[in-house]
Amino acid sequence: MKAVRFVREHSPPAVQVVEKPTVQDPLDVIVRIAGAGVCRTDIHILDGAAPLQPAPPPPFTLGHEDTGWIDAVGTGVSNVSVGDPVILHPALTCGVCPACRNGEDMYCARTRFPGVDGMDGGYAEYLRTSVRAVLPLAKGVPPAAQAPLADAGITAFHAVRRILPELRPGSIVAVLGIGGLGHIGVQLVRTMSPARVFALDLAPERLEFAARLGAEKGFTPADPGFPANFLKSSGGNGADVVLDFVGEQNSPEVALQILRRGGTYSIVGYGGNLSVPTVAMITREIRILGNFVGNYRDLVELLELQRQGRVAVSAKEYPLTEAPRAVEDLRRGRILGRAVLIP
Amino acid sequence: MKAVRFVREHSPPAVQVVEKPTVQDPLDVIVRIAGAGVCRTDIHILDGAAPLQPAPPPPFTLGHEDTGWIDAVGTGVSNVSVGDPVILHPALTCGVCPACRNGEDMYCARTRFPGVDGMDGGYAEYLRTSVRAVLPLAKGVPPAAQAPLADAGITAFHAVRRILPELRPGSIVAVLGIGGLGHIGVQLVRTMSPARVFALDLAPERLEFAARLGAEKGFTPADPGFPANFLKSSGGNGADVVLDFVGEQNSPEVALQILRRGGTYSIVGYGGNLSVPTVAMITREIRILGNFVGNYRDLVELLELQRQGRVAVSAKEYPLTEAPRAVEDLRRGRILGRAVLIP
Amino acid sequence: MKAVRFVREHSPPAVQVVEKPTVQDPLDVIVRIAGAGVCRTDIHILDGAAPLQPAPPPPFTLGHEDTGWIDAVGTGVSNVSVGDPVILHPALTCGVCPACRNGEDMYCARTRFPGVDGMDGGYAEYLRTSVRAVLPLAKGVPPAAQAPLADAGITAFHAVRRILPELRPGSIVAVLGIGGLGHIGVQLVRTMSPARVFALDLAPERLEFAARLGAEKGFTPADPGFPANFLKSSGGNGADVVLDFVGEQNSPEVALQILRRGGTYSIVGYGGNLSVPTVAMITREIRILGNFVGNYRDLVELLELQRQGRVAVSAKEYPLTEAPRAVEDLRRGRILGRAVLIP
Amino acid sequence: MKAVRFVREHSPPAVQVVEKPTVQDPLDVIVRIAGAGVCRTDIHILDGAAPLQPAPPPPFTLGHEDTGWIDAVGTGVSNVSVGDPVILHPALTCGVCPACRNGEDMYCARTRFPGVDGMDGGYAEYLRTSVRAVLPLAKGVPPAAQAPLADAGITAFHAVRRILPELRPGSIVAVLGIGGLGHIGVQLVRTMSPARVFALDLAPERLEFAARLGAEKGFTPADPGFPANFLKSSGGNGADVVLDFVGEQNSPEVALQILRRGGTYSIVGYGGNLSVPTVAMITREIRILGNFVGNYRDLVELLELQRQGRVAVSAKEYPLTEAPRAVEDLRRGRILGRAVLIP
Repeated sequence: MKAVRFVREHSPPAVQVVEKPTVQDPLDVIVRIAGAGVCRTDIHILDGAAPLQPAPPPPFTLGHEDTGWIDAVGTGVSNVSVGDPVILHPALTCGVCPACRNGEDMYCARTRFPGVDGMDGGYAEYLRTSVRAVLPLAKGVPPAAQAPLADAGITAFHAVRRILPELRPGSIVAVLGIGGLGHIGVQLVRTMSPARVFALDLAPERLEFAARLGAEKGFTPADPGFPANFLKSSGGNGADVVLDFVGEQNSPEVALQILRRGGTYSIVGYGGNLSVPTVAMITREIRILGNFVGNYRDLVELLELQRQGRVAVSAKEYPLTEAPRAVEDLRRGRILGRAVLIP
Repeated sequence: MKAVRFVREHSPPAVQVVEKPTVQDPLDVIVRIAGAGVCRTDIHILDGAAPLQPAPPPPFTLGHEDTGWIDAVGTGVSNVSVGDPVILHPALTCGVCPACRNGEDMYCARTRFPGVDGMDGGYAEYLRTSVRAVLPLAKGVPPAAQAPLADAGITAFHAVRRILPELRPGSIVAVLGIGGLGHIGVQLVRTMSPARVFALDLAPERLEFAARLGAEKGFTPADPGFPANFLKSSGGNGADVVLDFVGEQNSPEVALQILRRGGTYSIVGYGGNLSVPTVAMITREIRILGNFVGNYRDLVELLELQRQGRVAVSAKEYPLTEAPRAVEDLRRGRILGRAVLIP
Repeated sequence: MKAVRFVREHSPPAVQVVEKPTVQDPLDVIVRIAGAGVCRTDIHILDGAAPLQPAPPPPFTLGHEDTGWIDAVGTGVSNVSVGDPVILHPALTCGVCPACRNGEDMYCARTRFPGVDGMDGGYAEYLRTSVRAVLPLAKGVPPAAQAPLADAGITAFHAVRRILPELRPGSIVAVLGIGGLGHIGVQLVRTMSPARVFALDLAPERLEFAARLGAEKGFTPADPGFPANFLKSSGGNGADVVLDFVGEQNSPEVALQILRRGGTYSIVGYGGNLSVPTVAMITREIRILGNFVGNYRDLVELLELQRQGRVAVSAKEYPLTEAPRAVEDLRRGRILGRAVLIP
Repeated sequence: MKAVRFVREHSPPAVQVVEKPTVQDPLDVIVRIAGAGVCRTDIHILDGAAPLQPAPPPPFTLGHEDTGWIDAVGTGVSNVSVGDPVILHPALTCGVCPACRNGEDMYCARTRFPGVDGMDGGYAEYLRTSVRAVLPLAKGVPPAAQAPLADAGITAFHAVRRILPELRPGSIVAVLGIGGLGHIGVQLVRTMSPARVFALDLAPERLEFAARLGAEKGFTPADPGFPANFLKSSGGNGADVVLDFVGEQNSPEVALQILRRGGTYSIVGYGGNLSVPTVAMITREIRILGNFVGNYRDLVELLELQRQGRVAVSAKEYPLTEAPRAVEDLRRGRILGRAVLIP
């Protein structure tokens, strides 16, 4: 089958022919891929800045944001049948460790993370995953376009869910970066909380995109009037929460500039560095949260919002074999929403 | 009256004679000081590293951790009478801004902070404060020795209270720095939660002190076996929470070394810098909290624990005029618990 | 001035001429009434079933849901000026007791409740209240129509806010009674949470009203297919939360019939009786909450939602002197939304 | 093997010889029983007042609170080995339904409850259970005496854990009924929270028992001075939380008499009826919680407290064949702590 693989740092991903995966364990599930989202993490991996350390060596198939149809199942799998449309939680989990028993899938003691930790991912015609990673999609929903919910969506959902207790009427959430995750994040804050959303992005078309999704105002950190204009618009105190879907370049500095005293800085994107004097942590009484994907329940609930029409993915489709171009388009900021590869 | 004042950066505090404060507003309260605790913030101010910026210029009387007896009250004060023993919340608050109405005293829009923001503090025979800052002490309790509850205690309480939702049976709280705040923090974690306490300090006598207060184990970050010994003792994963009462030198690095994935790093001390790559925030899914003193309710509840005998202050008394020696002893780590100045 | 008063149990309220209230205390505020909402509590009082016991004896002026303009203030009042449009929190509070310091206005140790506890209320041209009960309205908002926010609105807000932690995507909130409180409650659940709303009422026009406000489905408990149709529509398990704005007749039985295992029954209306075997409390693991008005912060946040256009009151205006007719219309279920008396 | 069975309503349990259970499913686990606790639920079943409805018909083996050693395991069981000492979560759970994935074991869609729902329980030499119900005990701990943790303990833990967010310094928890659950509940409140414990029981020796376990005061509801003496001792307002381990006779009335405004009535015992006017729910703003056993994580955490010596079970041992006498002793209130049957 065809697969798009990480073969060497600082090289584009390679379209190759590899063997189709097969059931090896009673709990295995083979999925025929409908769509595989393209994530900035793929760029980080290609650039030699893999999030998991030590970095898994190439080659392996990229892709950790997948939908498809059940192709084959192991003898212990009874929750899905061949042909079912499914979305995949990004991680394989054991189901018996304390984290799994508590529903904290990403903390599973024996987790695997296809497309990220060296196990082959979903930039391919077929993917091997496991019984606890599959979640049935409603029959009438074309799976390909939902792929971004599997990672961009679940991660945004997880981050938004964790800040909900902070959000009251009049609260301001600054969403930093209106890309694959951010465009879902804007919708989630609006539909799950009484908060107001202020969007931040360098590209005017993304701020317009955010406005269409429910953001009340838009700001460009490169604007010379920034952050004064942001602070004034917020009533003087800044944002109650900054959701940072960028996490690199100067986004931590930007976030801290616009965060009110007692506020929460929630980090989702990565690649940069957070540096803050402890005295500022104290006197401003800041809270900083890291966020790592989300659990299975997050995905279940996100799909429910999609089913109700309260959240929609903006997906731009590319043939699987054009993955190198999709990656390049993402790198150059040419995608509004999320790129999805179609085998 | 005598007062000990900040007169110049990088000089010891000066014992001077100043005018006794008087009631100037209907809600003013004049307190005859029984005891005034010596805090590392006083050292920071003397060293030109004041926590509030812009730094208030000298001269002013130091001291923000006070007990005493009511000496005089304005016409609008009815909750205390002359002669009553009281402990003082460190901040003066307005009572009508949104923060005050919500019980968040430290976020008062018109707050004053005697001994810190340039208003004269409690290293003196008398202090001027306000109706909302006074809290009656039980009659039989000698006020002087309780002074450290007013800032060291309330701040430790506030920080511990905020992490309580994280603490379950088997949770490990690493308490970093067993000084004025830390020795109260150890007791609070033990009496308010089911968690285990692991103490960290450079001084062996402080680790023994922590053990007497309920810490299960003690560690010295300077030990060559550290942090491996800590991680092993914790069962491999590290601490669920690190309560950092130091916040300077390398304490943020130490804290992050021993923090488990998904854990909380709660910062109380200051003077250093926190630096962490955003990718570590994400993959380790860390939570970082700053803490700034505490609210009036925190002080009420802390006093209740003291009344029940569940928390006790270890205080070392100095005559007010020996404040320079007390400050120097604190600087050199010669105090077990908290130094208190007695006018 | 004119006032509408409770003069005798089981008699209609009487339109009388009484003395205009005057400032008696430095913190007093006299408000010229713009609008006064008519509440089922007024009916309970008139019927000899006052909520506060022992029942305050007549005569006194009814009305506990008021907006207006500042007419006069005591010497200690600086947060509002004569002529300012205001909405009134229903309770007068002391500001210094522990409850007030924590923002729990309804638990104030020295609270007064005009129109309910025997102190004269807002069915009048003028009302005497206190500094902590006034909340400025935006200048351009006609005060009369906002009156229902002061009690119907704040109470619905308080009840909805308390259940927010239970509400996740896919959660179902059953709103029982689409009247003065319920029609605001439907909007609040929709705009503050990701939950779905199912409305219940005996009157078809109220279910249509609820549908226009965001309810997904409507049910009539008198329908022979009820509760089976409700349970089926919910997917078999019932509602996650029942918000009961009725609280009398058989509403507790209806609520418990449609509540899922582990669900929350939140009671706002009153007049009836709750009876449930303890074994059902255990095996169904039900949570039951009583709700009593709301605090000042609730009112601040509710007004913010009104300002953003996320919540709107449906008010039907009556001249003050026609209060008896308004009360009778409420009793007979002829009001969609809330009746408001205009002096 | 020998087993003690429910054979007929209103008859004592019968000691019989039955077949030893065997592995029937790959996830089955056969446990050789070390100890089986005697619970009031057994009495309810014998009396024809089974908690689960429709009541499972006799005959079946009683016992839902068990420890023992692994005797045999199915082919899919890898978390325990033959000979391991274990404590058993009372319920068998599927591991894949939404409740199981969220760690809410008692809400499993396919749960079984040996000894209660008609499946044979632990009043026997051997018990058949399932992979997800077993929790290893530390090697040095004699399993028999720990049996009460499996149901009395986990249920008390679950109820106490759910009220922890309400408990602050100075809070008063009234523990109603110092029996098998209550004697563990007293210890849990003391070691997991800063609250004070007031014990209530009809038997003076149980109040003394509670005092030894950390209760500050004891009250007898039958005392003519009750509830006035309770209210006075609490400072006038009553208990913040009532934990009712009785739930029958007049315990709901007693609980509501001593509960403060805004307080929580948490019900664990059953057999009686709760009746309260909705107006009292509103004006007192009461919260009422039902509690049903606890989840696996609760059991893990409770064992951790037992391991640390912060909670201890008081167990009175009986030979298995004397189960009828043990049941009778429980019925007559002759047991301090919990009766445990030893095969």
